Amino acid sequence: MTTPVGSASDVKRHKWWGWGLDDVRFRWDNKPAFPGFAHAKIGIDLPSLPPAVEPRLEDFEVPASRLGDDARDALAEVLGADTVVTDDEIRVVHSFGRSVRDLFRVRTGDFARLVDAVVYPGTEEEVERVLRIVLEKDLVLIPYGGGSCISGSVTPDVDETRPIVTMNLGRMRRVLSIDDTAGLAVVEAGVYGPDLEEQLNEKGWTLGHFPDSFAYSTLGGWTATRSTGMQSDKYGDIADIVRGLHLVHPRGVMVIKGLPSQSTGPSLREIVVGSEGRLGVITQVIVQIHRRAPERQVIAYMFPDWEHGIRTMHAIARNTDIHTTFARLSDGPETAFSLSMLKEPTSLKSKISGAVQDQLFSYLASKGWDTEEEMCIGYVCFEGSKSEVSRQQGVVKKIVKGNGGISLGAGAGKIYDQKKFDTPYLRDFLLDYGVFGDVSETAAPWSRLNEVHAEVMKVVRRALDAIERPGFSFCHMSHSYHAGACLYFTFAFPYSTPEQALEEYDTVKRAMQQAFIDHGATLSHHHAVGTEHQPWMEQDVTPVGVSILEDLFASSDPGRNLNPGKIVA
Amino acid sequence: MTTPVGSASDVKRHKWWGWGLDDVRFRWDNKPAFPGFAHAKIGIDLPSLPPAVEPRLEDFEVPASRLGDDARDALAEVLGADTVVTDDEIRVVHSFGRSVRDLFRVRTGDFARLVDAVVYPGTEEEVERVLRIVLEKDLVLIPYGGGSCISGSVTPDVDETRPIVTMNLGRMRRVLSIDDTAGLAVVEAGVYGPDLEEQLNEKGWTLGHFPDSFAYSTLGGWTATRSTGMQSDKYGDIADIVRGLHLVHPRGVMVIKGLPSQSTGPSLREIVVGSEGRLGVITQVIVQIHRRAPERQVIAYMFPDWEHGIRTMHAIARNTDIHTTFARLSDGPETAFSLSMLKEPTSLKSKISGAVQDQLFSYLASKGWDTEEEMCIGYVCFEGSKSEVSRQQGVVKKIVKGNGGISLGAGAGKIYDQKKFDTPYLRDFLLDYGVFGDVSETAAPWSRLNEVHAEVMKVVRRALDAIERPGFSFCHMSHSYHAGACLYFTFAFPYSTPEQALEEYDTVKRAMQQAFIDHGATLSHHHAVGTEHQPWMEQDVTPVGVSILEDLFASSDPGRNLNPGKIVA
Repeated sequence: MTTPVGSASDVKRHKWWGWGLDDVRFRWDNKPAFPGFAHAKIGIDLPSLPPAVEPRLEDFEVPASRLGDDARDALAEVLGADTVVTDDEIRVVHSFGRSVRDLFRVRTGDFARLVDAVVYPGTEEEVERVLRIVLEKDLVLIPYGGGSCISGSVTPDVDETRPIVTMNLGRMRRVLSIDDTAGLAVVEAGVYGPDLEEQLNEKGWTLGHFPDSFAYSTLGGWTATRSTGMQSDKYGDIADIVRGLHLVHPRGVMVIKGLPSQSTGPSLREIVVGSEGRLGVITQVIVQIHRRAPERQVIAYMFPDWEHGIRTMHAIARNTDIHTTFARLSDGPETAFSLSMLKEPTSLKSKISGAVQDQLFSYLASKGWDTEEEMCIGYVCFEGSKSEVSRQQGVVKKIVKGNGGISLGAGAGKIYDQKKFDTPYLRDFLLDYGVFGDVSETAAPWSRLNEVHAEVMKVVRRALDAIERPGFSFCHMSHSYHAGACLYFTFAFPYSTPEQALEEYDTVKRAMQQAFIDHGATLSHHHAVGTEHQPWMEQDVTPVGVSILEDLFASSDPGRNLNPGKIVA
Repeated sequence: MTTPVGSASDVKRHKWWGWGLDDVRFRWDNKPAFPGFAHAKIGIDLPSLPPAVEPRLEDFEVPASRLGDDARDALAEVLGADTVVTDDEIRVVHSFGRSVRDLFRVRTGDFARLVDAVVYPGTEEEVERVLRIVLEKDLVLIPYGGGSCISGSVTPDVDETRPIVTMNLGRMRRVLSIDDTAGLAVVEAGVYGPDLEEQLNEKGWTLGHFPDSFAYSTLGGWTATRSTGMQSDKYGDIADIVRGLHLVHPRGVMVIKGLPSQSTGPSLREIVVGSEGRLGVITQVIVQIHRRAPERQVIAYMFPDWEHGIRTMHAIARNTDIHTTFARLSDGPETAFSLSMLKEPTSLKSKISGAVQDQLFSYLASKGWDTEEEMCIGYVCFEGSKSEVSRQQGVVKKIVKGNGGISLGAGAGKIYDQKKFDTPYLRDFLLDYGVFGDVSETAAPWSRLNEVHAEVMKVVRRALDAIERPGFSFCHMSHSYHAGACLYFTFAFPYSTPEQALEEYDTVKRAMQQAFIDHGATLSHHHAVGTEHQPWMEQDVTPVGVSILEDLFASSDPGRNLNPGKIVA
């Protein structure tokens, strides 16, 4: 048994109305091409707009906590009074994930149903005791990691009449042990990405799991929502990384040992991964960890268009002589967007490279490339010994050339690594100006990637036309597997009025999700089901599949006390 | 919908009393060192023994089928009368897997409870209709692939009072489609290994899944029992290979699409993999397929002892510059056994290599190696381009040398590939002489492989002492993962009397399984749970884990009609 550490107030959290740290904002003023891009794509003239006014919590009515004294006392007895928090701002933060719907709702004070208390257990035993109280007193329990989810997994049902307790695992943040021989670490589930990497790095290890949400997501959250990090080609999806776990279940603690593989019937590990709190609370995770590679290189490539790029990415994935850490391809519109996000050159070196880039683009245009609309940028990351990284780069360079692309080298590749965790702040910035910017992603077989890409781009265009809004979408391919890859779409449009905003959003989002299913792809590659993707579950895994999951949850939790309504209704 | 093909009588099957083809037997007379080994280890003097007498079915009483006319008529209406088989020999064959317990029982006519009919559906629709009859008439249904399982997964419960129908999927053996771009094939579940490889090879593909049972096991069986093939380091366990499937479930057909990855809650794919018929019948599987590698090499290595060998295998597994197809290490006793199994040299070349081997062993002995007891042989398989195979061999050679081993080259490596599917016949041969030869395997973290190895060897010794029998065990390591590997133990001993035989067997087997659990390993790496490993389920995945599986099966199959008693009671 471990001793609880830290206090509720030490646990880091998002700003109440948006993503991440209170004092971090997306900036456009150091990105010379961005205003032009924004104007062309969504008709917004940034320089003419006044500075954004931030939402103020005091402008909204926050309903009082419905937690009765009886339940509060019982929880306080287990946890101490200061870790049963009913403070307004804390309840607001914990009542929403960070989907665009969540961000819009929280900014507009849509607080019809907030969670009634946030508890911060410090040990697995405390989690067990809280769960017993939840069941005895017929409360609702929502486990909470970093609150970064975009599928509604931590958001309470507005019709829930019972008191709702959110369990923030943030105090349970320690690496409990490292098996240096096996490359396995036993880690408490509440640890945030950067904290976990720091603890592992100190001992010479890395988890290798870097989702976009890294700064504001936790190991337990990744596990409960079937997360995938950018470097999954090498390090695996979270289901590969998680070799064992502890689940506090209504009937006690289930322990799955940290093992390379097991033949123990249906995989209990794979039943807990992706379960979004419906089977209980994940308190410990046993993960694969890796020594940091001696050499790491990210190389950038350019392709005349998406089809050439995909052909190349597929050739890289199926070449058994190469084992990349990641391989990623932006389509034409995403490439244009990326270029618009480049910061103003400040050093001589970056000014020179800017000039070199201009020359390169002129040259490519002279070769017949459409450098404005069609040209695609790709990145491939190589890790290993110096000689092996160099050998693999050589093989990939040949593949790229053979498929009509060119190599931009490691300088351009560095851009990728630098900006990777900043993107979520952009959505808050867009919302400041009444613009929705969101993502929707899927996985499909290699044979259908082009079709899915083309169809989704088409249905977004149609949906925007239907709601008579300007806007755009773009896409990248990432997470290569033998059989296929992930397509990750971003879309943005200015909504017409706050009253119609979410309906307009749903029109676009629904069209994309339906196109995924209609063209042989899945409802999400790594963003879980929650409530956002639930309408497509039956189409994705058939009604029988949904009924098996319903049974699974109902038999573990007949009273529907554990995050009810998530994954399946 | 597919049209049914073939007839029940076309479906290949084991000899009724043992493994595989009627006319194939293990031979010792072409293995000069084998009699000496057998004599030293289990006290049997093969040359002095009379030829074995084969069991005859007519010597035993075969109970009549309990299938009522009503059920028979209903099944015949769906399938045609000639695919509802109640013939004695067919019922005997289908009532047992090929565990040592099964082989002993079938040879001794332990037919207290046989299955009552064997049906051979030709299409998924027929499977659905049969399942409806099973549920309507309260029959028991046991899905059956190749009948090679050694965990009791296809053996009926002796106390079952309802009529038992075994469903042989052998007519459903077609590759329905191949997606050449994605490397995915849609395959009917009843196809045997060699048939599947032949169909795929014709189109330039391979599945890469080669379990020891390959010749007598099916894709559906592999999926239902969480099988692993010899080349899993490259091609993955069956859970990796299976990207989608069709399950005929009591509520209808669940279709999981063939996708690289999905974020749809608890993995339904991983719920069906390993479900041993308890959730329904797997009718189609969508699998990853691979182009055959341009170059393939198996290299043999020698190590002074197990610890040096394991250190080497681990160094190979964790070296991210190498991606082997398999890596395998025999311990000292298994190495001695392997040498005893070498065939008499018949060509000049093999005579020379025999002489070279003798010289090598003398040299190694002069260096202080214990070439009789401790020396270990290892095999590593490399696939890829010629240059890449050669590069990786070079890296491995250095690792081997650095860890005190030597390379024997590709000549010795070829032995591995040649004999790989013959081993199961040995068990029948041993049973001819009253000897049990069996296997028990597990997976453990790298940090515990030496401990598990030493402890299991010790408990086998103790168990044999306790039952006062001679005998031996040996082991190999195979199936490397980041976090650990599989340890595969073989043990043999002559039982005292037929009456005491199974009790003696259980004493040894139980000791091994318990040692696995006691030392942080799992009850099986790739041989499923069935009934044989069920006693260790609660210790392996905790009582909560077992209860979740019980609920899963009970909610899908409240009447316990689907292979009841398997995995959990």
